[in-house]
Amino acid sequence: VVNPAPHLLDRLLLGDLRALSRLVTRVEHGGAEVLAWMEQLWDRRSAARVLGVTGPPGAGKSTFVDRLISHHRAADRRVAVLAVDPSSPFTGGAILGDRIRMQRHAADPGVFIRSLGTRGHHGGLTRATREAAVLCSAAGFDRIVIETVGVGQTELDVVSVADQVLVLLVPESGDVVQTMKAGLLEAADLFAVNKADRPGSDKLLRELRAMLDERAEVAQAELPEVPLFGVSAARGDGLDELLAELDARDARLASPLQRPPATDLALRIVGEETTRRVIAAPRGRRVDGGDLADLARALEAGEVGPYAVARALLGSDDEP
Amino acid sequence: VVNPAPHLLDRLLLGDLRALSRLVTRVEHGGAEVLAWMEQLWDRRSAARVLGVTGPPGAGKSTFVDRLISHHRAADRRVAVLAVDPSSPFTGGAILGDRIRMQRHAADPGVFIRSLGTRGHHGGLTRATREAAVLCSAAGFDRIVIETVGVGQTELDVVSVADQVLVLLVPESGDVVQTMKAGLLEAADLFAVNKADRPGSDKLLRELRAMLDERAEVAQAELPEVPLFGVSAARGDGLDELLAELDARDARLASPLQRPPATDLALRIVGEETTRRVIAAPRGRRVDGGDLADLARALEAGEVGPYAVARALLGSDDEP
Repeated sequence: VVNPAPHLLDRLLLGDLRALSRLVTRVEHGGAEVLAWMEQLWDRRSAARVLGVTGPPGAGKSTFVDRLISHHRAADRRVAVLAVDPSSPFTGGAILGDRIRMQRHAADPGVFIRSLGTRGHHGGLTRATREAAVLCSAAGFDRIVIETVGVGQTELDVVSVADQVLVLLVPESGDVVQTMKAGLLEAADLFAVNKADRPGSDKLLRELRAMLDERAEVAQAELPEVPLFGVSAARGDGLDELLAELDARDARLASPLQRPPATDLALRIVGEETTRRVIAAPRGRRVDGGDLADLARALEAGEVGPYAVARALLGSDDEP
Repeated sequence: VVNPAPHLLDRLLLGDLRALSRLVTRVEHGGAEVLAWMEQLWDRRSAARVLGVTGPPGAGKSTFVDRLISHHRAADRRVAVLAVDPSSPFTGGAILGDRIRMQRHAADPGVFIRSLGTRGHHGGLTRATREAAVLCSAAGFDRIVIETVGVGQTELDVVSVADQVLVLLVPESGDVVQTMKAGLLEAADLFAVNKADRPGSDKLLRELRAMLDERAEVAQAELPEVPLFGVSAARGDGLDELLAELDARDARLASPLQRPPATDLALRIVGEETTRRVIAAPRGRRVDGGDLADLARALEAGEVGPYAVARALLGSDDEP
């Protein structure tokens, strides 16, 4: 099964958005043919920059992404938005409710907006998101935005596919920030507090600054600077500074230091595909250690080690 | 084949150095049973800190590591040294010529020194090194030193197993530094110019500082500070400052931010083990794309993509 849909891939490479949409659906469903597609498309990617945007529900991500689209379109950049909701089953292309705001861009052929849901297997959504981004890149987009709802570990994993990550908060997000502290600080390249005209905005910005300083102190090293912005995505206050910073960062991403090492990525893909095959096999999602989803949760909680999970996925050497 | 050598593992956990030595040999040979051992030992690791030491031949790494051993022993810390030579075939425990300097520690039961060579398959030595470190940790060592000869990508991959990496240079290393520039700067947490009493030491230190500054400027971000030291490992000049910095960094490594995410490591291990099984299979090291070693080189050179390599390793879905 080398390439069951050559015409779709050809149309994708010509920038056909319907082919792109159908291929994203196929990637989302995670079929056996996807690996071969990715092999073919890898060298056909554009120089697209990938931005991750995440934050708790109600932080105004859709409004911000809508503004971001307008900003890039004004500079004649083609923009693809992948709206990823880890809590939803895979969507087959349906647009989530809060995407409606962006639909004023839907008629623009320089804009592609798609929702991605999960088939519920561990790491599968991160893989599907990376592969959807490869598809968008091969279709010639200049900017790809990966938006996730929520700031749990799954959402942060998904946005880790991006070159850089913006975490969007609101003045009321203090509790979220405290709960997710280490993971959030590690994942974020930039923070913005949206709806900054509301009370509590300055307080949250100060808390974030203090957390970042404390982190640098604990590490006793100069960690990469994480800039903070107070904005109002709806009214436009402070947006120019944030967009200028994002543009400046996009321009710098040529540095090879930003790319994940190819060997690491190849080994990871083998791991992801092995996971997919275990799930797709007649035995289904049960592996030596029990249910695969339970095992994945136990791994993240530190209750089992990575070797135990690898062994469960691979089976013994006699039945590879 | 759950555990073919239970007595060896039991003896290892009691700190038996002969059991450790035999198990390191088994890990180096990369047998099918290693995955199961690692699963059993993962939760039995000590809180050992792992330091990588690398640099070009003649930089005085062995002399430095000898001093480092004495330093840790004076503080009653048990030290394991894994001397990794990617250019040698696997050693089965033989001690390389330049290890002789360290042999004055060989009679000390608080010190374990082993050479590790390569079976020549891509990524295999990095895996063996990580697994030898797990063995040392399970045997109760407090500090593990991974020493590699050379500063090519393979050597830098191997030391990436460590919590932190010290690159040791000599005043004559200017050319090496220029050649390896990006990779070296990315891998090093600290630099030391050894034999700093020789002419050219200050010049090299200035060049390193300029390269680090330039890197920070290109990234336009505050990158982690990389301290530079001028030392003489043989005469002891400047060593106290370097050793104090290493101790301070060891003490800070409790931060969970330092650990690689467990999911990433699990997926990588699946990739490594799949690679091993391909090599061990009757078809040998030939995969869809040709010779596996050629494919690995092409991947590092950017001539093929990670999906192509993953697909070659996995085969099509019908023959998993």
